Amino acid sequence: MIDAVTTSFQKQGFMKLLGARLVSVEPGKVIIACPWNESFTQHNGYFHGGVLTALADNACGYAALTVQPEGKDVITVEFKINFLKPAKSPGIIATGNLIHAGRTLTVCNGEVFDDTSSILLAQMTATIMAR
Amino acid sequence: MIDAVTTSFQKQGFMKLLGARLVSVEPGKVIIACPWNESFTQHNGYFHGGVLTALADNACGYAALTVQPEGKDVITVEFKINFLKPAKSPGIIATGNLIHAGRTLTVCNGEVFDDTSSILLAQMTATIMAR
Amino acid sequence: MIDAVTTSFQKQGFMKLLGARLVSVEPGKVIIACPWNESFTQHNGYFHGGVLTALADNACGYAALTVQPEGKDVITVEFKINFLKPAKSPGIIATGNLIHAGRTLTVCNGEVFDDTSSILLAQMTATIMAR
Amino acid sequence: MIDAVTTSFQKQGFMKLLGARLVSVEPGKVIIACPWNESFTQHNGYFHGGVLTALADNACGYAALTVQPEGKDVITVEFKINFLKPAKSPGIIATGNLIHAGRTLTVCNGEVFDDTSSILLAQMTATIMAR
Repeated sequence: MIDAVTTSFQKQGFMKLLGARLVSVEPGKVIIACPWNESFTQHNGYFHGGVLTALADNACGYAALTVQPEGKDVITVEFKINFLKPAKSPGIIATGNLIHAGRTLTVCNGEVFDDTSSILLAQMTATIMAR
Repeated sequence: MIDAVTTSFQKQGFMKLLGARLVSVEPGKVIIACPWNESFTQHNGYFHGGVLTALADNACGYAALTVQPEGKDVITVEFKINFLKPAKSPGIIATGNLIHAGRTLTVCNGEVFDDTSSILLAQMTATIMAR
Repeated sequence: MIDAVTTSFQKQGFMKLLGARLVSVEPGKVIIACPWNESFTQHNGYFHGGVLTALADNACGYAALTVQPEGKDVITVEFKINFLKPAKSPGIIATGNLIHAGRTLTVCNGEVFDDTSSILLAQMTATIMAR
Repeated sequence: MIDAVTTSFQKQGFMKLLGARLVSVEPGKVIIACPWNESFTQHNGYFHGGVLTALADNACGYAALTVQPEGKDVITVEFKINFLKPAKSPGIIATGNLIHAGRTLTVCNGEVFDDTSSILLAQMTATIMAR
């Protein structure tokens, strides 16, 4: 299960571009982090919402993957994200937590924190489909 | 108004990283495009959802900015996005359309199409705050 | 298909309670209306968001049902709704429009208008599952 | 603060129609419950999603109201809700929890449980505006 997540994560060109790394993979919970980089900014120099979103999306998707039978893949059906504070820390940490696992659909909550894990920057709910 | 959007867009390190360009800016409607790149992929080689999301978020945010008084800035409060089809085209095109402009909050719909603008890949609704 | 929608609608105790009626059922598009009633209000005397939501949810769900094979049922997986204006008209009209129909999941947009269909009060996107 | 919530709640015709009652009001947390009734059903005899939504919306809105200065009112800007299980219990209990309070916007999470508070039926995130 951890292997499936690691293998999939390493195939993602976008995670490589963001310098993102898998911090932790447990059943129903995945953590991903990336450092600040001038190439990740919006117009005020903060992390772009798209970067927070990409990390949270992956943390949620992989949290869903941890509870699937071997050989299954997951795709994100949809998500909603609220941005709570400007993301101007030296890095961000996204956690994905399993909320409900159905046969076809899984719902996960994602949270994006600053690099000290103490300031909540954004909150996501994602619907993920196994196939 | 077009200047405000162009100036802000050029400050975004993340748009530069994605090779994104402003295709069109009209009152209440903004179009942004970017080409496929192996660095933008998820684990199956398609565009990562985070790339579609970043473009749609900006298209919505700038559509909202076009109807603000000069000197105002906008920030994204939240959005929801549904992924409808795998994004495996040579490029993607995101449009942001103003739905409702209030004094404080503006609501825009975003759509992400393939590079021929004929296949709808994803659909967003975003809430944007002027300040 | 129209029969399936009508039959299902009539089984809904909640639609009866709201005095709601099916205005129109076409493939991929359903319209539902209900009159204002003091029992439907929030604390300022306007339609409660829950009433707008219930009508839009049903309009979306039934729009999805119109494109399902006979004998299939649909359930709402999730939706997001933005409230754009206070709903203080003598009635409301909710339309559900099919955006994308997949094998398992269908995405519909819902709009809630005042009783003259000229003022957009709320906008929904719903994910619906066939089973 | 508790008084403001109670007073507002009692003005809502829709809460009366649903037989809903304020179970608990604390700073940043509000609980609302209502019993099952045939008039609250969708086509399979379960609670209609609109009923779960109305309760969760109010629980979130009032959780936001508890942290506002006296005399302020709140309105729901938007919310997203995921339905996790069929709601076929003798009653439902909705909790609203404050996640982030900004000057203008407040974000709350809502959860809807069965009448024993042990089964999570639905999960909401709501954006609420003070004015």
